[in-house]
Amino acid sequence: MYPQKESRMPTTCPGSVSTQGLHRNHGGGLERECSRNPDQQPPKLYGVGNPTAAFSSDSPHLSSRGSVIKWFWDSAEEGYRTYHMDEYDEDKNPSLSQRDMLRVEPSLLQYPDWRGHLFLREEVARFLSFYCRSPAPLKPENVVVLNGCSSLFSALATVLCEAGEAFLIPAPYYGAITQHVYLYGNVRLVCVYLDSEVTGLATRPFQLTVEMLEVALQGAHSEGVKVKGLILINPQNPLGDVYSPGELQEYLEFAKRHELHVVVDEVYMLSVFEESVQYRSVLSLERLPDPQRTHVMWATSKDFGMSGLRFGTLYTENRDVATAVASLCRYHGLSGLVQYQMAQLLQDRDWISQVYLPENHARLKAAHAYVSEELQALGIPSVSRGAGFFVWVDLRKHLREATLEEEMLLWRRFLDNKVLLSFGKAFECKEPGWFRLVFSDETHRLRLGMQRVRQVLEGKSQVAEDTPSC
Amino acid sequence: MYPQKESRMPTTCPGSVSTQGLHRNHGGGLERECSRNPDQQPPKLYGVGNPTAAFSSDSPHLSSRGSVIKWFWDSAEEGYRTYHMDEYDEDKNPSLSQRDMLRVEPSLLQYPDWRGHLFLREEVARFLSFYCRSPAPLKPENVVVLNGCSSLFSALATVLCEAGEAFLIPAPYYGAITQHVYLYGNVRLVCVYLDSEVTGLATRPFQLTVEMLEVALQGAHSEGVKVKGLILINPQNPLGDVYSPGELQEYLEFAKRHELHVVVDEVYMLSVFEESVQYRSVLSLERLPDPQRTHVMWATSKDFGMSGLRFGTLYTENRDVATAVASLCRYHGLSGLVQYQMAQLLQDRDWISQVYLPENHARLKAAHAYVSEELQALGIPSVSRGAGFFVWVDLRKHLREATLEEEMLLWRRFLDNKVLLSFGKAFECKEPGWFRLVFSDETHRLRLGMQRVRQVLEGKSQVAEDTPSC
Repeated sequence: MYPQKESRMPTTCPGSVSTQGLHRNHGGGLERECSRNPDQQPPKLYGVGNPTAAFSSDSPHLSSRGSVIKWFWDSAEEGYRTYHMDEYDEDKNPSLSQRDMLRVEPSLLQYPDWRGHLFLREEVARFLSFYCRSPAPLKPENVVVLNGCSSLFSALATVLCEAGEAFLIPAPYYGAITQHVYLYGNVRLVCVYLDSEVTGLATRPFQLTVEMLEVALQGAHSEGVKVKGLILINPQNPLGDVYSPGELQEYLEFAKRHELHVVVDEVYMLSVFEESVQYRSVLSLERLPDPQRTHVMWATSKDFGMSGLRFGTLYTENRDVATAVASLCRYHGLSGLVQYQMAQLLQDRDWISQVYLPENHARLKAAHAYVSEELQALGIPSVSRGAGFFVWVDLRKHLREATLEEEMLLWRRFLDNKVLLSFGKAFECKEPGWFRLVFSDETHRLRLGMQRVRQVLEGKSQVAEDTPSC
Repeated sequence: MYPQKESRMPTTCPGSVSTQGLHRNHGGGLERECSRNPDQQPPKLYGVGNPTAAFSSDSPHLSSRGSVIKWFWDSAEEGYRTYHMDEYDEDKNPSLSQRDMLRVEPSLLQYPDWRGHLFLREEVARFLSFYCRSPAPLKPENVVVLNGCSSLFSALATVLCEAGEAFLIPAPYYGAITQHVYLYGNVRLVCVYLDSEVTGLATRPFQLTVEMLEVALQGAHSEGVKVKGLILINPQNPLGDVYSPGELQEYLEFAKRHELHVVVDEVYMLSVFEESVQYRSVLSLERLPDPQRTHVMWATSKDFGMSGLRFGTLYTENRDVATAVASLCRYHGLSGLVQYQMAQLLQDRDWISQVYLPENHARLKAAHAYVSEELQALGIPSVSRGAGFFVWVDLRKHLREATLEEEMLLWRRFLDNKVLLSFGKAFECKEPGWFRLVFSDETHRLRLGMQRVRQVLEGKSQVAEDTPSC
């Protein structure tokens, strides 16, 4: 019932080198092993993804990468498909349409500037200047528009990396990025594993520190993997967390020291619903340490709940990167008609600021509060600081063993009860038992969903309680 | 002034191994060398493209393939950009918009089935069944829709070939395909050079024969290049020619013998304006020799003059290929709103058959007749059998020497006189001096364009006549 406004959750990439480690001490470098797994290797603080492991070329008609690409379709999204085969239904909502949104000018039907029509790039620059609170106006020539952030990941990976090279990414992360950089680009991800325990320099669960970045970078290098950049998702998906300006600055300085590109995915930028959370776009910083290597992405899929509209944008001061991405935009172009509609939407700042965002934030906040209370009543810890559409839920004590198999079994129990959660492995979370629960839905649907969650957990809690988890 | 409804013409890919040979005897295997080039190697009947030759990685921020991708942007389309900087202008046309074309339903704004919404795939299947005159109804499950044929070439190349493998393609061909299969897919094209002279088994200029296909295939193999498929453009661009059902069948049988995929680009399918030309879609054949390896593409860019709308479709009976392409469609998706509009358009068969196509064909035919007469009056031979938006013009006698440099100089003279033609090298034509002239424009613009063509040719014809060309 949940994915209404949220993205699909792909099946995670098989064959990751990530260790399914459990807890670890962070500061002293000592690894604390799980008492129930004495034979287990010391967990690694990073993992180099290998998306091709475990594939076999099962079609005589496809190249080996074609088979990989097909595999992602076949095996991914079992939950999503199950959901759609037996979808929770209700009366259709009446839909609104703004006057003058259908405009068919000849120029909109001709081959466009692949960077996007100038009128749209100008509007995007104004929009981002305003909502990112940039210290100086952003420039249309630094904008490239295309049909979504998935495409942007694909294009950036391809133009920044050689085949086989890698990006660092703090994990858990929105798992679809694995495919986005790999399917066309053949680029891998090096996970920087975050820890649910507050240890070392961290002050909150799953906090990213520069120390972790350094360890993962050196680890990848020692395995012969060349790292070309760092991906930051801010607000973070699935953690619902945001980076402070100080943290952001530290990560950017780290990247500059190592001449790494930084791809900042701000697709939830306008979905920070908790007033106390001080979100800052990277474009709001007074000074970027390395502007030529800082590339920002935003889209309407999440903040405007329009994933089917297919609109995303890159902002970068690096002209080479902008041009190379634009060159690939002949494969990621969006209709001139949609470009016109997008410009109409983005320029309506009165409506966005005074009507849409307050209402959207109020709804998200209410849904988040409801879900958080329900989880608390169920005795389930969760992480979320008030951004995004989800809470990151700790169901470790509901696993009989701290394994990914058990995590999958629990996920399937939810699915059998018609609740679609996303399991932690899909986010490359190294601790089995974490789930992402999306709450951006209408109240009555959310209530039904939480009832089903409760049924699953209470129905099975006996089993879990009998077997102390690690 | 010409590209109004026609595609951009990319700069050709550098570093092709193609020999700039001139005429040759075809049947007997004897090569007739040009008397003015005694040192020249015997011309090859095929050429393996190497799109990376001549590139240098000129940006410190891009990967080597990123630099190649950027190069295609920087160097391509000089003509097109020059045109736009000083564009011929007139009063804007009023635009028509059909009632009920803007429909914003929630489902259209959510993540779609990446193959395309079912309502659209059903409509595409009905549309193609009707206009391709398929012997049996085509099936929606064999349809994948995406944002244009450029993307479809990219996706097919990637899922059918390993990096470095190749497709055969008869040349001259629409040169952008070079990039489409290479930029993401790293797939190369092996040119099958067609000849302007009627020799051997051919009965008309630039005719493709199975013999040529065999020679090119064996030649590529002997150079260690693995060929995975054959690309056929039908109606052909830039020749304005169509394959007869018998020819089509022969090419398909050739492909089957060698287990090659055949990608049939039918993007000008509804732009056959000469009644005497009996065009047959490959989907109309009673029996496909190898249906699992036959993949058909169509789009609205040409036949409906809507390149900016970004709509293309694949039809294939091969489920693996359809699924793998669909998997890549997360990077080639088109807006749900556009999908709705497309379905509305395609189902309006009364209007298409009784209003749009007759009018479009009449206009194309008139423009073609006018241009052909003008060329004849100028004493310029040309090729075109009544399909597509262009004639293939023989300006060889207007070159001082039969070289690509001279071809480019002539092209630039046209451009300096504000006429944008496409030079033969952009189509990998092996005979310097051929140009594609697009005529799909309004009468008064066409007249102005032909005046300018005449001025260029007459102003310079003295030079050409002084120097007998090879």
